Amino acid sequence: MRIGFWQFRPRFGAAAHNLRQAREALSGVAADLLVLPELAFTGYHFRDRAELMALAEDPAASPTVEGLSGLCRENGFHLVTGFAERKGDKVYNSALLIGPEGLVATYRKLHLFNTEKEFFDPGDLPLRVVEVAGARIGMMVCFDWAFPEVARTLTLRGAQVLCHPSNLVLSGYCQQAMLTRCLENRVYAVTANRFGADVRPHGTLRFTGRSQIVAPGGVLLVRAPAQRRRLEVVEIDPATADDKAITPRNDLLADRRPEFYA
Amino acid sequence: MRIGFWQFRPRFGAAAHNLRQAREALSGVAADLLVLPELAFTGYHFRDRAELMALAEDPAASPTVEGLSGLCRENGFHLVTGFAERKGDKVYNSALLIGPEGLVATYRKLHLFNTEKEFFDPGDLPLRVVEVAGARIGMMVCFDWAFPEVARTLTLRGAQVLCHPSNLVLSGYCQQAMLTRCLENRVYAVTANRFGADVRPHGTLRFTGRSQIVAPGGVLLVRAPAQRRRLEVVEIDPATADDKAITPRNDLLADRRPEFYA
Repeated sequence: MRIGFWQFRPRFGAAAHNLRQAREALSGVAADLLVLPELAFTGYHFRDRAELMALAEDPAASPTVEGLSGLCRENGFHLVTGFAERKGDKVYNSALLIGPEGLVATYRKLHLFNTEKEFFDPGDLPLRVVEVAGARIGMMVCFDWAFPEVARTLTLRGAQVLCHPSNLVLSGYCQQAMLTRCLENRVYAVTANRFGADVRPHGTLRFTGRSQIVAPGGVLLVRAPAQRRRLEVVEIDPATADDKAITPRNDLLADRRPEFYA
Repeated sequence: MRIGFWQFRPRFGAAAHNLRQAREALSGVAADLLVLPELAFTGYHFRDRAELMALAEDPAASPTVEGLSGLCRENGFHLVTGFAERKGDKVYNSALLIGPEGLVATYRKLHLFNTEKEFFDPGDLPLRVVEVAGARIGMMVCFDWAFPEVARTLTLRGAQVLCHPSNLVLSGYCQQAMLTRCLENRVYAVTANRFGADVRPHGTLRFTGRSQIVAPGGVLLVRAPAQRRRLEVVEIDPATADDKAITPRNDLLADRRPEFYA
């Protein structure tokens, strides 16, 4: 299985432009599953909830989702992308799994970061695992990395590959923690971060790149530079993630003692 | 508050000798709480359960615990040490909190590593938090590091300082994961590892040193070399660990969404 990320620089509030960027960069790429950053089509640094609501789309009637489905159809891959998801009067910081057949699954960020709490509604869907191209994948978004329960829950539900759209403003913490997530859960993780900045009248937010792919055991397979576009695809065997043994007598899931955990 | 570790090389099966080593190294040390390695007085690489049972001690009638209590009395500090704990026909890989007044608290390793499963009984006590010298401390032993639930449970129960006696045979994994534990829980952690080897007729086990103290946020305060004796004491403010805020709007405990965790 070929999994990868596309690290790029979305332009704020310019979904059609960002979709063209994605089409140009990803057409012809030989991959099964590609992960894009958090909020990859709207940008991140909203002025207020009204601005976010105006830019967010309902996936059921979204030119962006339609365009990405077409891209998946033409190339035979699946995408996981961050997405500002509007549903009635609610708006979520979501990750969408999109394939040749359209939208496959939605995850809504459970742990909102900083001012996101003013703009977004907190996630209200279970952490799910979905089968894609022969692998069981789980989705989490950016700051979810700080809560070990997220990667653990997805692992307990069978995930082999964590797809992790991100818009990281600090450098290094998430990347280090995701090594630990892959060590303690023996899963793969693809963290797709953006780079560049959202320069807005109310302030500038800079993003830190360094997207990465980690293998079970916490092995770093590839890491992007901080401020460059980067497409990376690696070949993995998702079944590697089914082996939780770290000694002949230790299995990282079977050895848990949940009756002692708070 | 002054916390620290003593990294040393226990001699296998020589509790009285190891106690003399401790007395020589720790007498006169200005500290409030010192952490010693896992199984610091028996050594680690037992031939079988019978050998372990013969070397293990009941803390209620233990020359080692008595000697350490005396050391605490003379110096006005507390110790957390790894200890082979016999109770009737059971034997545990324990951590003991010992003070001037004697044994204060016992933790029995919940997650046994590799051949420990053949020799030891699995821990059967709750993860507890105890107040020592103005700080709330929690105990965990070595391989417990691989289970994020342990540090999380101790944090949820109020721990400010994790005391972590260890006998690490691999290098780096635990040290990296403990940085993540202190990042995700905003606690202090003292990992006290041993060095040298247990050279036994049935095989040799080598230990990897690199004991460390980490502050909330995952900040490495000090790390020992791999194969040297090392006493390190740092001054900390345990109350720092009560502040779980990482942005003005994010508190790493209050932001949890336990209803979504498996």
